[in-house]
Amino acid sequence: MKILLVGASGTIGKAVGQELGRRHDLILAGRSSGDVRVDMTEPASVRELFKKVGAVDAVVSAAGGVRFAPFDRLDAEAYQYGLRDKLMGQVNLVLGGRDAVADGGSFTLTGGVLDSDPIVAGSSASMVNGALNAFVMAAAIELKRGLRINCVSPGVITESMPQIGSFFRGFEPVPAARAALAYAKSVEGKQTGRVYRVK
Amino acid sequence: MKILLVGASGTIGKAVGQELGRRHDLILAGRSSGDVRVDMTEPASVRELFKKVGAVDAVVSAAGGVRFAPFDRLDAEAYQYGLRDKLMGQVNLVLGGRDAVADGGSFTLTGGVLDSDPIVAGSSASMVNGALNAFVMAAAIELKRGLRINCVSPGVITESMPQIGSFFRGFEPVPAARAALAYAKSVEGKQTGRVYRVK
Repeated sequence: MKILLVGASGTIGKAVGQELGRRHDLILAGRSSGDVRVDMTEPASVRELFKKVGAVDAVVSAAGGVRFAPFDRLDAEAYQYGLRDKLMGQVNLVLGGRDAVADGGSFTLTGGVLDSDPIVAGSSASMVNGALNAFVMAAAIELKRGLRINCVSPGVITESMPQIGSFFRGFEPVPAARAALAYAKSVEGKQTGRVYRVK
Repeated sequence: MKILLVGASGTIGKAVGQELGRRHDLILAGRSSGDVRVDMTEPASVRELFKKVGAVDAVVSAAGGVRFAPFDRLDAEAYQYGLRDKLMGQVNLVLGGRDAVADGGSFTLTGGVLDSDPIVAGSSASMVNGALNAFVMAAAIELKRGLRINCVSPGVITESMPQIGSFFRGFEPVPAARAALAYAKSVEGKQTGRVYRVK
């Protein structure tokens, strides 16, 4: 398969690249590195991306950020950041790719464990991840040409624990390589509308 | 209790007003009708609202719209509409009210059945409702002064079936008066971080 991997330079993205790169041709995309550049928060940039890469069999996104801060200190703008970046950024890849991806192709987005297991300072992440799960479930029933869409919801990643472990006390971390398996399941399997939880 | 009801003139809002009005003092709020006016998409307007009404014991929102259209015809702007209106509009009520609501008070927001049971043309609603459920779950663990927050996720409302029934074939409608009971449970009970599904 020819697979477009957005967010290829991140902790999860690198592991997904290693897993899928063994069997497939990858085009690595990122905001500031990779084979192709894209600002996924801009629909025009996403359209450019698909013009450049041509037809692909799968789009995998491991990209998108949110603001982490105690609820007291989060204002509307902080929530908007996550909605614009991790939520609509990834949704833009689907909107921009729904005509560009080959028949039977797939989209795989990235949510996270805070969709169902909240932490202090994580309410924006919870909001965004909940939105992604529900969007994927709903978009799946309307995609045409056999296109599929799923979301991977990984636990906190082992490799990120040195930086963010103090927010995730009591969470059992997931090695990025294990999380990457769920992306392979989404891309190389045939399910759609699923949230793959990696615990 | 003194209860601020936002979206008081809508189908659900009216039923909630009837249910809660039997036992409580209601302040009815809306974009273009009610005792007080508010554009909940504007944080400044929400701040004004809470200045006007003073301390309340509960905020109930039955307000917020999304765009319904086949997935093919939804662009980023259409999704943004729902994020700005039904999602962040209601979240703005919480952000603006978290210091204004009395100790032990509550917020009750409105999601909907498309959070888990998608329909054609409903992917924006699914996204927004999923976001609301997860936000409420997460904000609940960080609210101070004993404040609570819940979301009511009603099925399609019987009174709305003449207008939107063709989108919801096979859904068992819920009379607005039954949906209103869940709001009473949220406001007058003591649970927090809950999604009350009314089926």
